[in-house]
Amino acid sequence: MQRFACDLIIDAAWVLPIAPENRALSAHSVCVTDGRIVALGPTPDVHGAWEARHRVSFEDGILTPGLVNAHTHAAMTLLRGVGEDLPLERWLRDCIWPLENALVNEDFVAAGTELAVAEMLRRGITTFTDMYFFPETTARVARAAGMRAVLAFPVFEGSTAWSRGVEDCFHLGLALHDACRGDPLVEVAFGPHAPYSVSMSTLEKINMYAQELGLGVHIHLHETAHEVAEARRLHGRSWVHVLGDIGLISPQLQAVHMTQLEDDEIRLLANHGASVIHCPNANMKLADGTCPLTRLVANGVNVAIGTDGAAANNSLDVLADARTAALLAKLQAGDPTVAAAPDMLARATLGGARALGREAQLGSVEPGKLADLVVFVPDSPAALPLYDPFAALLHTGSAFSVAASWVAGTQVVHAGQPRLLDETAMHAHVREQAQRVRAHR
Amino acid sequence: MQRFACDLIIDAAWVLPIAPENRALSAHSVCVTDGRIVALGPTPDVHGAWEARHRVSFEDGILTPGLVNAHTHAAMTLLRGVGEDLPLERWLRDCIWPLENALVNEDFVAAGTELAVAEMLRRGITTFTDMYFFPETTARVARAAGMRAVLAFPVFEGSTAWSRGVEDCFHLGLALHDACRGDPLVEVAFGPHAPYSVSMSTLEKINMYAQELGLGVHIHLHETAHEVAEARRLHGRSWVHVLGDIGLISPQLQAVHMTQLEDDEIRLLANHGASVIHCPNANMKLADGTCPLTRLVANGVNVAIGTDGAAANNSLDVLADARTAALLAKLQAGDPTVAAAPDMLARATLGGARALGREAQLGSVEPGKLADLVVFVPDSPAALPLYDPFAALLHTGSAFSVAASWVAGTQVVHAGQPRLLDETAMHAHVREQAQRVRAHR
Repeated sequence: MQRFACDLIIDAAWVLPIAPENRALSAHSVCVTDGRIVALGPTPDVHGAWEARHRVSFEDGILTPGLVNAHTHAAMTLLRGVGEDLPLERWLRDCIWPLENALVNEDFVAAGTELAVAEMLRRGITTFTDMYFFPETTARVARAAGMRAVLAFPVFEGSTAWSRGVEDCFHLGLALHDACRGDPLVEVAFGPHAPYSVSMSTLEKINMYAQELGLGVHIHLHETAHEVAEARRLHGRSWVHVLGDIGLISPQLQAVHMTQLEDDEIRLLANHGASVIHCPNANMKLADGTCPLTRLVANGVNVAIGTDGAAANNSLDVLADARTAALLAKLQAGDPTVAAAPDMLARATLGGARALGREAQLGSVEPGKLADLVVFVPDSPAALPLYDPFAALLHTGSAFSVAASWVAGTQVVHAGQPRLLDETAMHAHVREQAQRVRAHR
Repeated sequence: MQRFACDLIIDAAWVLPIAPENRALSAHSVCVTDGRIVALGPTPDVHGAWEARHRVSFEDGILTPGLVNAHTHAAMTLLRGVGEDLPLERWLRDCIWPLENALVNEDFVAAGTELAVAEMLRRGITTFTDMYFFPETTARVARAAGMRAVLAFPVFEGSTAWSRGVEDCFHLGLALHDACRGDPLVEVAFGPHAPYSVSMSTLEKINMYAQELGLGVHIHLHETAHEVAEARRLHGRSWVHVLGDIGLISPQLQAVHMTQLEDDEIRLLANHGASVIHCPNANMKLADGTCPLTRLVANGVNVAIGTDGAAANNSLDVLADARTAALLAKLQAGDPTVAAAPDMLARATLGGARALGREAQLGSVEPGKLADLVVFVPDSPAALPLYDPFAALLHTGSAFSVAASWVAGTQVVHAGQPRLLDETAMHAHVREQAQRVRAHR
């Protein structure tokens, strides 16, 4: 019998497809052609039906959809470990912001993003949403490394290293959007910093453009209790309601942090199909509060996982944040059955894809979807024995390394190393920028 | 000028001595002779004054005291990932206990402990306190690998795979204590499972023996709210007060978990010099509650860090638990300045040594102390840039690997590998036992 031709077959000890059924499939294989998944089945069946130009086998590997880091500030890897254990205000006003004002330029963003991309690829991430200055530089670095990136370009009222006021942010961001049209890897979203730092008229304008262009709106929201109290003082209601009134609570909204939420706010998010990006490690470290994962999910709100920037976390390991999210949810619910490992793997993949409005193409190992795939392999005694691949990745993720990953069928990690990134140059760039940081501390 | 002779000099980019001053020392060296630290100073000064038979240099290494895992059930690595996300009662009664009843024997404990020792050595741990069946087997495995271990031998009223009732526990445990007299690596403590599973008369007997022999008492205490409510129902007061009444709250007490604590209980612990072992990952995962780290420390109670067993955590990475402890303390205090990185490194080293009554000999890099030392080296982009070695180890610990470690001056990890453990044999033993587990699930 003649077999179908395909570009690549990947055999793995386990495949976690996430959807349509979220269960572990033993000894399965995935076929890829033209950057898309064309088949998934038991290894002997797949090899009986398909003939591949390339075949790779991971006899102790766990294959998953590429992970999605749904919120980061990639270049802030260069500020990892700066100003530790300070009060939030002092950390921002005396440490992070002055360093950013003095140091951020295109070279800083390029070096910091190269480091972030090297780190994220090694931890199984194939897509990230970034909110930082010089997003065109972030786009260039991500594209070169083969990663998928959503550039939520910052919108600030005042001047920044990158922009001179709101008009300039729109001008630069929409020019980037034009430049990215048809780009298979990079797209653009609006990244208003927060409702307290951007005017209502600017947010209304963002909403108008976002609706017209079909772009996402990525915003820090209800990060601290102080911020919510300020909204009540100024507007008589919380920011979620203020944004609801101008139409910003929509399927295009990616509301980041959300550590303070009342039931009526959760219903508003659910009714309008908005996504929440949960960044538990950064929220705990800065003592901001806890995003109510279990309540959000119970009400039908899509929750994705983000690492936040490395200045706050301090790593860009979305699996580690998914773990913290699970532990925190169990503790807060007083119930060890919530936030089960398969659900948390789904948040770090399909949840992220949904937040980006890309769930038809990304986030699961299903025929027809883009071949964004990762293979994790045991890399430490802590990975043994392997009874439950979901729990193994979620709770002992750091005991696994990424042997290989692909974005739209292009291999981006090979033999544990980013394949399209010049790491020697990256290290030199990071050393140079880190010296600038040290000189300004 | 003639230089003093010593066995070994270790040069490191950073030394974190923990005591007498808990700050990072750049480009320092440590001299070791006869298993003890004899000098610590800036690298050029040390080499000017000392001549070593061996010298090792880690130009990007961070040298710390060996980490102390103050509570685990080492052999339970074989049950890692079994019965995930179940309610506590079902997890124990339908899953863990039946598996233990069916499977635990000397071979199981040997294989599981070999795996645990391989895992712990790779994560910088040089001392662990274990509470499990067949502690003589655990002692043998730890000794062979060169690790320091405190065997808190279990005391149960009923029969176990290891013991036939309380008398037998005492008989076996005290025989092990006799066998370990003068052993440089292994010592014994009493390990009554919990106040609700051991009778008052047994606890009184344990207290008498422990005082007489100068041994530690290691007990699960106030792990769940249910347990404390039961004590109130049965005894009209909490277990901490019940134990206080029979004299068990003493400097020899290692009270494990302590997720439920009133102020008067904290004062009782402080006044009697007891230590608390905080196991945050396991407590969160099982939804037990949170040990009040900040309140305990403010009241002068020594708090050490434990991983608990791998069935509950799921790893034996005490640095990862120290990180979770820090994040949780910041969140609960609503204050990002508490549980600072240097304090948390101190809990995972000197705090553990104090809990064991060994703070005069272990837990810091000070001349006169035993040379239990670890060198961490960057092993991933997430370790860069390195501005703050405390934050780097605490918050991005999994980005570092252990290049080398020593116990009493004997090298136990070399080039990232346990030096005295046959890992090929270990893997075979683990595979064999894991097949038994799979057959019984």
